[in-house]
Amino acid sequence: MFRIAVFAALIQCLGLGTAVVYAQDHIVHDAEYYVLEAQNGRKWAAEDEGLDARLAELRKKHGRPPNIVHVMWDDTAYGDVGIPAIQMVRGLKTPNLNEMARQGLMFTRMYTEVGCTPSRAACMTGRHPVRNAMYNIGMLREMHGLRGEELTIAEVLSQAGYATAFHGKWHLGDIEESYPHNQGFDEAFFTCYNQILSLWTRKGEAGNATIGLFEDMLPNDPYKLDDTFVTKGWVQIAEGTKGGATRQWGDNSHDNYMKIDPEAQRRTLEFIERNAKKGQPFYVANWPNMASFLPQPDKFSVARSLLQDGLEGNIDPFIGKLLAKINELGIAENTLVVAMADNGPMAHNPPPGCGFAETIFRGGKGDFLEGGVRVPAQAWWPGTIQPGLAGDILHETDLFTTFARLGGATQHITTDRIVDGIDQTALLLNGDTHSRRDYVFIYAGPNLGATVKGNFKRHWISSDPIGEASGIPAGFFFLPSDPREKSPMLVNLIHLKSPFNRMRVRHELWKKRYPDQTEKHGVPFTGIENAPPEVKALSQPPASLKNLPFDPLEYVENLDDLPFDSELDAGLGER
Amino acid sequence: MFRIAVFAALIQCLGLGTAVVYAQDHIVHDAEYYVLEAQNGRKWAAEDEGLDARLAELRKKHGRPPNIVHVMWDDTAYGDVGIPAIQMVRGLKTPNLNEMARQGLMFTRMYTEVGCTPSRAACMTGRHPVRNAMYNIGMLREMHGLRGEELTIAEVLSQAGYATAFHGKWHLGDIEESYPHNQGFDEAFFTCYNQILSLWTRKGEAGNATIGLFEDMLPNDPYKLDDTFVTKGWVQIAEGTKGGATRQWGDNSHDNYMKIDPEAQRRTLEFIERNAKKGQPFYVANWPNMASFLPQPDKFSVARSLLQDGLEGNIDPFIGKLLAKINELGIAENTLVVAMADNGPMAHNPPPGCGFAETIFRGGKGDFLEGGVRVPAQAWWPGTIQPGLAGDILHETDLFTTFARLGGATQHITTDRIVDGIDQTALLLNGDTHSRRDYVFIYAGPNLGATVKGNFKRHWISSDPIGEASGIPAGFFFLPSDPREKSPMLVNLIHLKSPFNRMRVRHELWKKRYPDQTEKHGVPFTGIENAPPEVKALSQPPASLKNLPFDPLEYVENLDDLPFDSELDAGLGER
Repeated sequence: MFRIAVFAALIQCLGLGTAVVYAQDHIVHDAEYYVLEAQNGRKWAAEDEGLDARLAELRKKHGRPPNIVHVMWDDTAYGDVGIPAIQMVRGLKTPNLNEMARQGLMFTRMYTEVGCTPSRAACMTGRHPVRNAMYNIGMLREMHGLRGEELTIAEVLSQAGYATAFHGKWHLGDIEESYPHNQGFDEAFFTCYNQILSLWTRKGEAGNATIGLFEDMLPNDPYKLDDTFVTKGWVQIAEGTKGGATRQWGDNSHDNYMKIDPEAQRRTLEFIERNAKKGQPFYVANWPNMASFLPQPDKFSVARSLLQDGLEGNIDPFIGKLLAKINELGIAENTLVVAMADNGPMAHNPPPGCGFAETIFRGGKGDFLEGGVRVPAQAWWPGTIQPGLAGDILHETDLFTTFARLGGATQHITTDRIVDGIDQTALLLNGDTHSRRDYVFIYAGPNLGATVKGNFKRHWISSDPIGEASGIPAGFFFLPSDPREKSPMLVNLIHLKSPFNRMRVRHELWKKRYPDQTEKHGVPFTGIENAPPEVKALSQPPASLKNLPFDPLEYVENLDDLPFDSELDAGLGER
Repeated sequence: MFRIAVFAALIQCLGLGTAVVYAQDHIVHDAEYYVLEAQNGRKWAAEDEGLDARLAELRKKHGRPPNIVHVMWDDTAYGDVGIPAIQMVRGLKTPNLNEMARQGLMFTRMYTEVGCTPSRAACMTGRHPVRNAMYNIGMLREMHGLRGEELTIAEVLSQAGYATAFHGKWHLGDIEESYPHNQGFDEAFFTCYNQILSLWTRKGEAGNATIGLFEDMLPNDPYKLDDTFVTKGWVQIAEGTKGGATRQWGDNSHDNYMKIDPEAQRRTLEFIERNAKKGQPFYVANWPNMASFLPQPDKFSVARSLLQDGLEGNIDPFIGKLLAKINELGIAENTLVVAMADNGPMAHNPPPGCGFAETIFRGGKGDFLEGGVRVPAQAWWPGTIQPGLAGDILHETDLFTTFARLGGATQHITTDRIVDGIDQTALLLNGDTHSRRDYVFIYAGPNLGATVKGNFKRHWISSDPIGEASGIPAGFFFLPSDPREKSPMLVNLIHLKSPFNRMRVRHELWKKRYPDQTEKHGVPFTGIENAPPEVKALSQPPASLKNLPFDPLEYVENLDDLPFDSELDAGLGER
């Protein structure tokens, strides 16, 4: 009832310009959600009673809310995992992931954000990264990260008594407030950047002569005038505890890089075992690096490529060990495991040996096309999730809200900002057709690229202005018959112009009430106890810059949204 | 032993130019096969003993060789059938085909020819259509068709005592010698062209004002000088019996077109029942039209598109009835059913409502890319074929040779020409990894477009000379990591230049011994008992042309390989 009142107020506000005061004791969703709630709210309320009863029963049976494990790896096209008849085509086998999919619910329409950083931010905060300016793909000395004021799922579940841990590729900032143990995790083992860390090594320098981060390996440059341009210090991987110290783990060598995933996996299994034995509910995110960007001598897959080798040789065996451990500890019936990719394939025109490729969908990482944001994803919870396929739309932000509900922690979600994530407990527990979302707004960097509503999609920007043939104009697409978004239906679907415009206007108007934030910047890698001198030096202008006619660190506060970065964020950055 | 001798002779012939006399009492395959046989012949011979024993045992048990049913529909991308997680994406359900796939062997690398006519010719003759010039996609008054001298699987199996029937889209010529009952089938119900017949109707004319086949529907043309240019007579669908009469069935209306598939299905089920009860082994090819090119009011699929509606509303229910009938008749354990598409999707940039689209692979009908020639395909034979997936390469020509072996009819295959089809009985009976082929030569029209060897592929022609970015040069591809053939590996795979060249040279040299044929032309639609006057007139120059200074039908014999037709055949024709 209350929600319907909010919707009515919203309609009034948008339609008539009347000022309305919102009493906020419910999560604030995007405007479109209220359009759905107004039409389905009664059905959902009735369904919720049944769901609450089942969750209460489970809690009684197990004595605690369910454990939650979230495994998220990189850059994999929908279909490359979980479907043997596609894996035969792509030259890989992931028997453990496939068996998990067979025992669980496989999503055919899990939408993510377009790249690593925004995708991770979305899962952590339940918000589209455009809201908190986390669409910037963090690179060396990014001096940017997740704001301390953002509320993460770790903070939400901590308040409900969960033990929380993060292990692996964080990629949500190199500034101190963004470190995972400063964002609600009890313990963390994390990298601030992505797999390019494997190249920022002496071995990487040897293999890629243009990197230039290890100047002592290069011939002397007789033209060199500036010794401050190239960054000399960074932290490959660190560990920390909530309220405790942060320490660099190992060094910045390639050998150390190769130890990250095994160590993260070891820590995850140990964390699970420790908390299972203690009887404390837990939430752990294990987001692996999956692979090195340097070619590796051991090949695991028929494809012998980075992606397939990473999936078959690293992720899949870990899933096997993870589920075996959960079964062995007797907690399978009280543990939800979600396994998924963070966005579409990195390469559109695959370079040799990488194995990333478009398949069913066009586009990949960085693109608002389905190929950029529709990923393999599956949920496993024996006894509670029934095996099957789900054709429903869901978005990775939904995990935030859903995990909160499963953990009995919904009341800890702040109501002062938009949370895009919808509670999808009904989809998990009741299966196919029980999603509470039929839409997705797809941003590429800070720009709204497309909007999905059911099987329809509107591009707001042309996907290919000067490409093949005469290019592809922005327009309307019917996804089942044109999954690659090649042929806008400018006649057949032009009647959708107004409905899509209405959706977008509501979305933009709602932002006036809840404005997007700007980026948060700072000096990178502060607060690391055992940081080497060159890392500590990042916060101190070098002696040679002492007498500049301006503050040499002033620029840090002014890094906001460089136009060039927007281009990068829109997908050119990581291809 | 003998085969190894042939191979040795071949090597000698190609390598040293020595003249060799071939004693031909075995099928002649393409040169590449002998390279494989020289290396695997002993293993295969041993395996064949086991296969022969199993086939003999089955024959003893059932009192006859197995029945064979071949269903082949149009233009479907690999994955669109048999894989529920792709069907959710594509907006269709084919529960019967999927259940058949689950119970049978699903091929992940079934290669076809690039278009309807060549694909059908390949299945019928076991030969690449370049050998008998059947790469021409037959259109109205094509005056061309399968030569009487070609040996079809119907002729081969007839000689072994099989009852044979063809029902549906033949598309192998409009000249009398090419009619299916003149090519070995006991009974036939067939169209000479493709689904465009649905547009060559008064309803089609009403919906597509530029067709112009029904001139009385058009405004009078005051500039018209020639009344012979537009063809006035054709036969939409005919029926006939071996050695008996040929008759047109119904008229050329759209209503009649819509009756073709139901009637073909009825006849197939009746044929099966009749022969099962008679105890005669049978072979029936049901190759449906699947759909009309005119939009239909009844929608069956989520995609509401021609392809998906045709599969979900027509093909899939028929498969359900077919397998139910076979089960009901108690002949399931002695009946092989093969269901497959004839080539890749018709449209690359899908027009509204058609539903044909590229998915995993790039390209479609007409293309030598995987998308043109890699199709959904599955074989079902309860008790004999074990459920599973096959990652092996096979080619549709292999069905010819395999059906012959299963029918105990291999000795009826002529040894005076190349038969590209390899016996794949081992793959059917022993499953994954038992294919006897690791290569495919892919022709687009008369031109060799690409060669596949294992996971490697060489393009002989650029797939995109002036397309996206700077185009895609012809080169070498590693299919698992680049299924869309976007990035030739010019460095990583350049060592394959010589092996692929060697393959091609062997293939071309073997053609010097067994040359490709030219097209066979003639007057269309002769020998049809109840043909209307305008069809009979096709063989008689109209009165107005009686006094020409040349023979008005002389051109028929000179239609060979018009350059424009080659362009059409290479894929532009049917997009």
